[in-house]
Amino acid sequence: MELGINLSFALKRWPEPERWASIVREDLGLELVQFTFDLLDPWWPQRERRIMAERVRRAAADAGITIHSAQLGLAWYTYNGLLHPDPAGRQIARQWWQRAAETAAEIGAPAAGGPLGALSAADAADPTTRDERYAAMLEEAVIASEVAAAAGLQALLIEPTPLPREIPHTIAGAQQLVADLRGRTAVPIRWVLDVGHALYRPLYGNDVSLEDWLLPLHDDIGLIHLQNHDFQSDAHWGWPDDRGVYDVASFVRTVRQASLADVPIVIELFYPFEMADDAVLASVHTTVRHCREGLADGAIAPDV
Amino acid sequence: MELGINLSFALKRWPEPERWASIVREDLGLELVQFTFDLLDPWWPQRERRIMAERVRRAAADAGITIHSAQLGLAWYTYNGLLHPDPAGRQIARQWWQRAAETAAEIGAPAAGGPLGALSAADAADPTTRDERYAAMLEEAVIASEVAAAAGLQALLIEPTPLPREIPHTIAGAQQLVADLRGRTAVPIRWVLDVGHALYRPLYGNDVSLEDWLLPLHDDIGLIHLQNHDFQSDAHWGWPDDRGVYDVASFVRTVRQASLADVPIVIELFYPFEMADDAVLASVHTTVRHCREGLADGAIAPDV
Repeated sequence: MELGINLSFALKRWPEPERWASIVREDLGLELVQFTFDLLDPWWPQRERRIMAERVRRAAADAGITIHSAQLGLAWYTYNGLLHPDPAGRQIARQWWQRAAETAAEIGAPAAGGPLGALSAADAADPTTRDERYAAMLEEAVIASEVAAAAGLQALLIEPTPLPREIPHTIAGAQQLVADLRGRTAVPIRWVLDVGHALYRPLYGNDVSLEDWLLPLHDDIGLIHLQNHDFQSDAHWGWPDDRGVYDVASFVRTVRQASLADVPIVIELFYPFEMADDAVLASVHTTVRHCREGLADGAIAPDV
Repeated sequence: MELGINLSFALKRWPEPERWASIVREDLGLELVQFTFDLLDPWWPQRERRIMAERVRRAAADAGITIHSAQLGLAWYTYNGLLHPDPAGRQIARQWWQRAAETAAEIGAPAAGGPLGALSAADAADPTTRDERYAAMLEEAVIASEVAAAAGLQALLIEPTPLPREIPHTIAGAQQLVADLRGRTAVPIRWVLDVGHALYRPLYGNDVSLEDWLLPLHDDIGLIHLQNHDFQSDAHWGWPDDRGVYDVASFVRTVRQASLADVPIVIELFYPFEMADDAVLASVHTTVRHCREGLADGAIAPDV
C-alpha cells in the first residue's frame, strides 16, 4: 500500500516548495504528496501564481516526489462554494473550479478537487431550494470536469463531508451523485474518503463502519485521507495524541479486505497556527512512523 | 461601552446578508458588526464581488447596522501574507491589501485590515532575512495605507497575533511598528487587540495582563476582540463553555480603568464547521447575553 501526506502540515511554516519537499522526502521518507491550495491559491493573479506553481513542480520533481493531486483546504472551504445561496456566489465558485484545474495543471498534478460546497441554513431548510441547488451543482460538476479535461487533468476529486448542509454527506447521497453524473463528465469522478469524516458518529451513529463507505463506493474511490480522531470531531490530529483513538492497523485491514490496497493512503494533519513549529514537526514525524508501522501490522495480521 | 460582533459566527450557515443582519439586529439586539472577508473574498472577480458587496451594504443599512470595519479571517490568514518568503507571494499580498481596501469601501466599511503576515520557519530562523522582511513589510504597510486612502477608508487595522513568526507578536514589537510607521501612512494605523491573543500564556508567560497591552498601545487602539479562552489557545469560544475561563466583567473593569471605554468591543467567535447550526446559534445568543451582563457588571462594580 502506498503512503503519502497532504501538505496541510506545512501551511505558513514551510511554504517554500524546496523546504516541504525536503521534509517529505528526506525527513519523512515519503515519495507521494497531495498538494493543498492552502499553499497556492487558485485566485491569485495568474502571472505570480504561475511563477510559484512552476517552483512547486520543479521542487517535487527534483526531490523525486509524485504529486497525486491538488485539493482545496482551509481557504476555499471557508466559503459556500458551488452551493452558495447567491447566484453571484455560485458564478464565483464556477470560476474557482476553473482556476483550480489550471493551477493543478501548472504544478503538474493530474487531478484536483475536494468538497463541493455547503448550503446556507436557510436553503437547507427548504426542500424545493435544496433540490434546485443540487440540480445546479450537478451541472457545475459537469462543467468542472470539462475545464479539468481542458487543463489536461485525468480526474475530478470529490470529498464527502459530515455536514448535513453539504453534498454529499451520506453514503446514499454519494451513490446518487455518482449515478447522476455517470456518463456526463469529461474526466472521471474519484472519491476522496476521509476516515474522520466517514466515521463521524454525531451524524452517522455509533455503528457506522468504514466498510459501510468502502463497499458501495468501491469502484470510484481515488484516495483515502488518514487522520487521528475521536469519532466525535473532524479532528485531523496526528499520532500519538491523548484525544485520538483511531487505530491504523485495523484501518489497513479493513481497506485490504475491501480489495482497495491499491488506493493511495494520504495522511492529512491540521495543527493550530499558534502551535510551536518544532512540536508540529515532531508530531508529523511520529505520525508518519506510526502509520507506516500500522500499514505493516495491518498487512501481516489480518483479523478476518 | 459599545458592544458588537464579528460576522465570523455566520460563515457558511448564514451567508445571506439579510439573514445575518436579522440575527444581529433582531435576535441579538446589536447595532454594530465587524464584517469578515470570510463572507466575501477580496480575490473574487470584481463584477460578482460588487454585486455581493452592494447586497451587504444595503442589508446593513436596512437593518440599522453600522459596519465598523472589514477584517481578514480564516481564508487569508491561511497564507503568509506580506511576510511570504517568495517575492511573488509578497507581490500577491500587496494586491490582496488593495483588493481588501476596495472591498471594504464597496460594503461601506470605513476601515480594513487584520494580521499582516507570517514569516516561514526558515526566514524566522535567520536574523538578517527577518530584518529584511520587516523592512519590506513596513513599505507594504505604507502602500496599504495609500490604497486604503484612495478607496476612501479612514484607517488601516493591524492585529497582533501570539505567534513568534508573525509581526507584531509582542508589545514592544507593536510599539516599534507604530514608531516606524509614524507620519508615513496615508491613513492612521489602528490596533485590533484580541484578548485571546494578548493573554496567550505559552508565549507571554503566566503574568501577562491586559493592562500590559492597553497602556503602551493606548492611543492607537481602534477595536478590542472579545472571546472566551483558557489562556492556552487562541480559542474563540463563546460563553458558557466548559473549557473557557475568561471573565468579562473583569475585562470591562480593566478597559475602563485604562480610559478606553470609548473603544468598541467586538465579540469574535469561531465554531467547528461540523457543529449543528442550532447549537451555534444558541451559543451566539448566550454569549451576547453574557457579554452584555459583563459590561453592566464591570461598569457598576469597579474592583480598583
